Amino acid sequence: MANYTTLEIVQENPNSAVFYLYLNRPNHRNALSRDFFTEFPRALSSLDQNPDVNVIVLSGAGNHFCAGIDLKTLTSISDQFVSGDRGRAGEKFRREIKELQEAITAIERCRKPVVASIHGACIGGGVDIVTACDIRYCSKDAFFSVKEVDLAITADLGTLQRLPSIVGYGNALELALTGRTFWSSEAKELGLVSRVFGSREELDNGVRVVAEGIGLKSPLAVRGTKAVLQRSRELNVEQGLDYVATWNSAMLLSDDLSEAVSAYAQKREPIFAKL
Amino acid sequence: MANYTTLEIVQENPNSAVFYLYLNRPNHRNALSRDFFTEFPRALSSLDQNPDVNVIVLSGAGNHFCAGIDLKTLTSISDQFVSGDRGRAGEKFRREIKELQEAITAIERCRKPVVASIHGACIGGGVDIVTACDIRYCSKDAFFSVKEVDLAITADLGTLQRLPSIVGYGNALELALTGRTFWSSEAKELGLVSRVFGSREELDNGVRVVAEGIGLKSPLAVRGTKAVLQRSRELNVEQGLDYVATWNSAMLLSDDLSEAVSAYAQKREPIFAKL
Amino acid sequence: MANYTTLEIVQENPNSAVFYLYLNRPNHRNALSRDFFTEFPRALSSLDQNPDVNVIVLSGAGNHFCAGIDLKTLTSISDQFVSGDRGRAGEKFRREIKELQEAITAIERCRKPVVASIHGACIGGGVDIVTACDIRYCSKDAFFSVKEVDLAITADLGTLQRLPSIVGYGNALELALTGRTFWSSEAKELGLVSRVFGSREELDNGVRVVAEGIGLKSPLAVRGTKAVLQRSRELNVEQGLDYVATWNSAMLLSDDLSEAVSAYAQKREPIFAKL
Amino acid sequence: MANYTTLEIVQENPNSAVFYLYLNRPNHRNALSRDFFTEFPRALSSLDQNPDVNVIVLSGAGNHFCAGIDLKTLTSISDQFVSGDRGRAGEKFRREIKELQEAITAIERCRKPVVASIHGACIGGGVDIVTACDIRYCSKDAFFSVKEVDLAITADLGTLQRLPSIVGYGNALELALTGRTFWSSEAKELGLVSRVFGSREELDNGVRVVAEGIGLKSPLAVRGTKAVLQRSRELNVEQGLDYVATWNSAMLLSDDLSEAVSAYAQKREPIFAKL
Amino acid sequence: MANYTTLEIVQENPNSAVFYLYLNRPNHRNALSRDFFTEFPRALSSLDQNPDVNVIVLSGAGNHFCAGIDLKTLTSISDQFVSGDRGRAGEKFRREIKELQEAITAIERCRKPVVASIHGACIGGGVDIVTACDIRYCSKDAFFSVKEVDLAITADLGTLQRLPSIVGYGNALELALTGRTFWSSEAKELGLVSRVFGSREELDNGVRVVAEGIGLKSPLAVRGTKAVLQRSRELNVEQGLDYVATWNSAMLLSDDLSEAVSAYAQKREPIFAKL
Amino acid sequence: MANYTTLEIVQENPNSAVFYLYLNRPNHRNALSRDFFTEFPRALSSLDQNPDVNVIVLSGAGNHFCAGIDLKTLTSISDQFVSGDRGRAGEKFRREIKELQEAITAIERCRKPVVASIHGACIGGGVDIVTACDIRYCSKDAFFSVKEVDLAITADLGTLQRLPSIVGYGNALELALTGRTFWSSEAKELGLVSRVFGSREELDNGVRVVAEGIGLKSPLAVRGTKAVLQRSRELNVEQGLDYVATWNSAMLLSDDLSEAVSAYAQKREPIFAKL
Repeated sequence: MANYTTLEIVQENPNSAVFYLYLNRPNHRNALSRDFFTEFPRALSSLDQNPDVNVIVLSGAGNHFCAGIDLKTLTSISDQFVSGDRGRAGEKFRREIKELQEAITAIERCRKPVVASIHGACIGGGVDIVTACDIRYCSKDAFFSVKEVDLAITADLGTLQRLPSIVGYGNALELALTGRTFWSSEAKELGLVSRVFGSREELDNGVRVVAEGIGLKSPLAVRGTKAVLQRSRELNVEQGLDYVATWNSAMLLSDDLSEAVSAYAQKREPIFAKL
Repeated sequence: MANYTTLEIVQENPNSAVFYLYLNRPNHRNALSRDFFTEFPRALSSLDQNPDVNVIVLSGAGNHFCAGIDLKTLTSISDQFVSGDRGRAGEKFRREIKELQEAITAIERCRKPVVASIHGACIGGGVDIVTACDIRYCSKDAFFSVKEVDLAITADLGTLQRLPSIVGYGNALELALTGRTFWSSEAKELGLVSRVFGSREELDNGVRVVAEGIGLKSPLAVRGTKAVLQRSRELNVEQGLDYVATWNSAMLLSDDLSEAVSAYAQKREPIFAKL
Repeated sequence: MANYTTLEIVQENPNSAVFYLYLNRPNHRNALSRDFFTEFPRALSSLDQNPDVNVIVLSGAGNHFCAGIDLKTLTSISDQFVSGDRGRAGEKFRREIKELQEAITAIERCRKPVVASIHGACIGGGVDIVTACDIRYCSKDAFFSVKEVDLAITADLGTLQRLPSIVGYGNALELALTGRTFWSSEAKELGLVSRVFGSREELDNGVRVVAEGIGLKSPLAVRGTKAVLQRSRELNVEQGLDYVATWNSAMLLSDDLSEAVSAYAQKREPIFAKL
Repeated sequence: MANYTTLEIVQENPNSAVFYLYLNRPNHRNALSRDFFTEFPRALSSLDQNPDVNVIVLSGAGNHFCAGIDLKTLTSISDQFVSGDRGRAGEKFRREIKELQEAITAIERCRKPVVASIHGACIGGGVDIVTACDIRYCSKDAFFSVKEVDLAITADLGTLQRLPSIVGYGNALELALTGRTFWSSEAKELGLVSRVFGSREELDNGVRVVAEGIGLKSPLAVRGTKAVLQRSRELNVEQGLDYVATWNSAMLLSDDLSEAVSAYAQKREPIFAKL
Repeated sequence: MANYTTLEIVQENPNSAVFYLYLNRPNHRNALSRDFFTEFPRALSSLDQNPDVNVIVLSGAGNHFCAGIDLKTLTSISDQFVSGDRGRAGEKFRREIKELQEAITAIERCRKPVVASIHGACIGGGVDIVTACDIRYCSKDAFFSVKEVDLAITADLGTLQRLPSIVGYGNALELALTGRTFWSSEAKELGLVSRVFGSREELDNGVRVVAEGIGLKSPLAVRGTKAVLQRSRELNVEQGLDYVATWNSAMLLSDDLSEAVSAYAQKREPIFAKL
Repeated sequence: MANYTTLEIVQENPNSAVFYLYLNRPNHRNALSRDFFTEFPRALSSLDQNPDVNVIVLSGAGNHFCAGIDLKTLTSISDQFVSGDRGRAGEKFRREIKELQEAITAIERCRKPVVASIHGACIGGGVDIVTACDIRYCSKDAFFSVKEVDLAITADLGTLQRLPSIVGYGNALELALTGRTFWSSEAKELGLVSRVFGSREELDNGVRVVAEGIGLKSPLAVRGTKAVLQRSRELNVEQGLDYVATWNSAMLLSDDLSEAVSAYAQKREPIFAKL
């Protein structure tokens, strides 16, 4: 696997289709540096194309998931664009923001489910990341903050676009306007995480069980579910139904369906080919 | 009333505007057969056109609400389309899926509110059905699963389109990717059901009270509320406000309004004509 | 400040950027009269244009937040349109409804955050108002009802458009079809309010703390957050990301950003200029 | 074939996949009666399901294509809804309009291309019909008018929704606000028809040639083209591209493709199986 | 009528429902000054509310329709925003642009049709204005240019939003990227104007005839046609059909309909009441 | 510059900001091979990033613009996906189609205007390419065909998505269903090309003049115009106006504006810095 300075990819078990992707700057609480934004989409793309991978777990090395964008990175980016012709600087800065956004959106572009396993701080850019993930679990010690407003920033890496569909528009507004910290239990109530585990160890085990479970399912059905849900988010119900009917007219009648039905009848676990 | 092999329609009380529609294959845990998909829209259409009906309660006969699509039905449908020219088979299969979808969407096309009264299993196709209903209540013993992924299927009867707006996009993804079972209390927390009753009997009584209550309200206002909420789901706020203003310019100034205001002033129950 | 018959504007503390806007017909439980619909957008516009104002708290004078539309107003409005040519009456009535709607939408048009501080009754038109606010807090004694259906009305002042994105589509349907009363704790569970305070006094204090907190943040970032979240509600994720990138290419590189970063480095509170 | 009082279906040539559907009340210039609105969707549905049909030509018997809605029909419909409770009448009238609309939309629901062959008058409801067709040709003597405004009607059978995408929004507004008559040559300039033939006979021949030509093409590709264009009309480019990619992943790899490629290499006409 | 410095309102004939609105700075070729942007929406609003007005003709005093934004206005606006904090300046400038846009959009907000009568130059801001009108006619001497790009401006008053639906997206791009001048005959071919008259006098007469014709039609149907076309522009076909059905359930069954039908039967001109 | 096997990039004049991109397989009438789809987006990206480039002219080497997809490419692609598990093959084939689509969409992603200069055949994939360009000119000998239907293909590289907004939905349907050939003069009438030149030489000269003209305009304004038009295509008018206001709040107040205004006052050509 490729070398990354801000990330690490680990396959814990060579027989497993679950791969772990770590934010890996633990001394900086995994704050997002400029390099991260280049490496992250590259890492996700390689996992997406690797047929051994069915599920990706995204986690943070060290004591925290992610402390948000690195302040030095923020300063150095903004320094690039404050001088010179205002219109030209604006055009270049807009492109820079879009490039940073693309790094986060890579999670959605990845056909395979990405499970966020969150402990400790998940702040600012960390929230941008987890709201782009497909499943979110956390440990009891996790805490969250849509912090950008406190740095005089209108959050621009995805939280304002994705959080409302996860926690509701009202909650998203309140969290983004106050920038207040909230804890794992509130994150669960809000629907930001689907489950809270008592400790980091329990989180690791719990996430492993869920991820391995998904990893054994039909990869066609899993990717179809992610793709169709994602697309339907922006279609109305009639359009979404038409889309999934079209999708399934191509993908449903596969070996996976017969295997799943046979296994069910034979009361055994189905075994699916790689995709 | 017409005869159905998979359904039963019951008017418990001849003075009431509440009609009960039962999924009625209790020996198969009300699994959805091919006949169901023909009979269900027909039954809903007849109830919609019947001026004696103001509210429909949808429930399952026997110990469960619905165990999902019948595996024999699934197998026989897929068998039809696996052979022959792939393109042609795809085109026909797509039409078949759209026809099955239409059966579920009939709940939304019905102008009158449909209240799902859920007990026991509500699995796969059962979730497709209840997410198309207007109100969902369940008993404590109810359990749910977006099960399709375990049959190697990308769910295509509506859950992926309707569940996100009910429980949030994040929760919908987690439920659909894991296919895990969840219980009445979690269904309540997620917003999938509005209330959990302690037993099936309490559920029946509770649903009756709510349904009778709606049945006594202005049928114009009830249908307007369902229609406008449904349409506004796919419009932005400005468009939705314009739509309801246009709607009410036609529907609001009715006898029902004067009756409601008079009754309120006279502290009596209003009585509304059929619609 | 201008004189209003249905409202009162109060700046509690001359050094504060938080202004209070009271629904001020306490003897009528702040029921919405025709005058309210003229005065309310005027008041919000004046606060929006006043550079001393960063945050608006919306509250009700007396024992209740708002009992909904005044029945006399309702009757007098409908009386205007029941006679005469039906098509012409429809056209005029539609314009009247749109004018009433505009009064509520003024909350969203106001660039500055509006915090609803709710106690006692919040019924019918009261719900229309609070669903248009940016943040909602209430005291334990608060109760809510989407009451319109009981007056034979399809709610047309915004609840049907805004409530679903706040509490989910399923909950919104159930509340609007039943018109049932629900209390502060359920409002919290549903996500309609972000926090419940034990008493009105605690509510006042709690709201003050939050509002003052927002009032000290960068006005550029706060308005950007409101504007971008509001616009993104109707765009898909890709469009929303592009929108905020464009927004920030104009607004991000401000004195506020450097002040925020400096203050953070110097571990002091940042001070932002008026906007 | 079924019997219709307002229509006639003709298969001119038993070896041909082109079927002719005539508006068949020549003594009334094919004005649209209430029966038409019931029979038309039924006829189109039967043609859609008939595997011998690949293309439908829609034409008018006698000297005109269609003079629009029958005034008696209009009067009798409106008479039904002028009395009684205004709100209830409005609700019923809205349903009636939607049923009439469905009859016209049946042209778009038909998977097979419908070619309008227009001569003489094409007025009011006639324009609603032809704008829903897939291809429009006319003879030199054809004339058109979006006439509804002169009957004090806001056109409600589809012209206002479909004409702008055909002739441009500006032209559609001008035609609909003035209700003016325009002739075949202007219809061609505006893009309303694709070709003008010198006489009715030339029209018949020309339409036959085109229709037979389409009738010999791959039915999968023809239906795909109609379906994808229709759906893409309401999607943005990115969504439309994704839709057609999904469509073709199911439908493209058919016997028709190999037959077409072989025939091309062998410089012969391809022959496709029925669909 | 109110006094305007940049406009003049003329009712040529006291018995007519057609009112003329002139851009009235002939010495500046009706270039748009800052005052224009305040006066124009005010004038349109007064005409909209005046029951004597059914149709508005928009024309230019002197030798030209409109030479675009006044360069002094442009300079003085931009001067206001070039200094000071870049973020704050951006926020204020954005509001200024939106206010200018609102002035043009006032044409669409006006319920009554606005007919642009164009002669001589129609450049830059002039194109923004006419693309917002409902009908466009010009004299042979008229010439047009989407000129903004030559002033280093991305056109922001509506041309980029409205021109594509009038002349097609391809033509709009070509015109906006080249900024080239085009003449009346090409404007007609492109669909930008519906008719070209040989001289200014013929234009005046031709426009009068059309405007008077519309002025005698049912005001309900005329406004309905404008409103429904405008709204349908942003809805898909299914949504647009539903919208017009809802609209007509309120507006269609009017005295105007019976008057129109009677007049038709009696072969006389119908006479409609004011609205 | 990089080496391409299917393309050639030429800067005719080292002082010019106009670069020529040639489809360069003249012996195959520039039919699109698999390599083309890899090289084309790469070439456009390099031109987009090159600050010396302001305008790109896309043309075909030899006697034709482009004969469409290479039949060998088509066959070899389809061969890859006909065998194996149908569902898996479908999933992979869908990705392949999307990758081919991305190659064409690269024209729209390029910030700089792409002018198609078309002579001879422009067929199938050639139409997909030119409909993605910003400006289209052709010589008299050019001919066009939306040919896919004759190869039993539902066109999937963009024509069905982009052609309707250029030539109208009605014309697009007729062209795509018949696959008929049409010539330069009809292409002009339809709005597919903006101008027809009498010969290839005149085309080359004419395109050069236009391209050089755009190349001298403010690069900020040119890119803004392309970007805003493209984005507005999928927004409604209100959203599009808001978008351009936000855009210009960042980009308008540039050196280019002052230079353009000064040059205008001084009656000289403006000179703009690179971007």
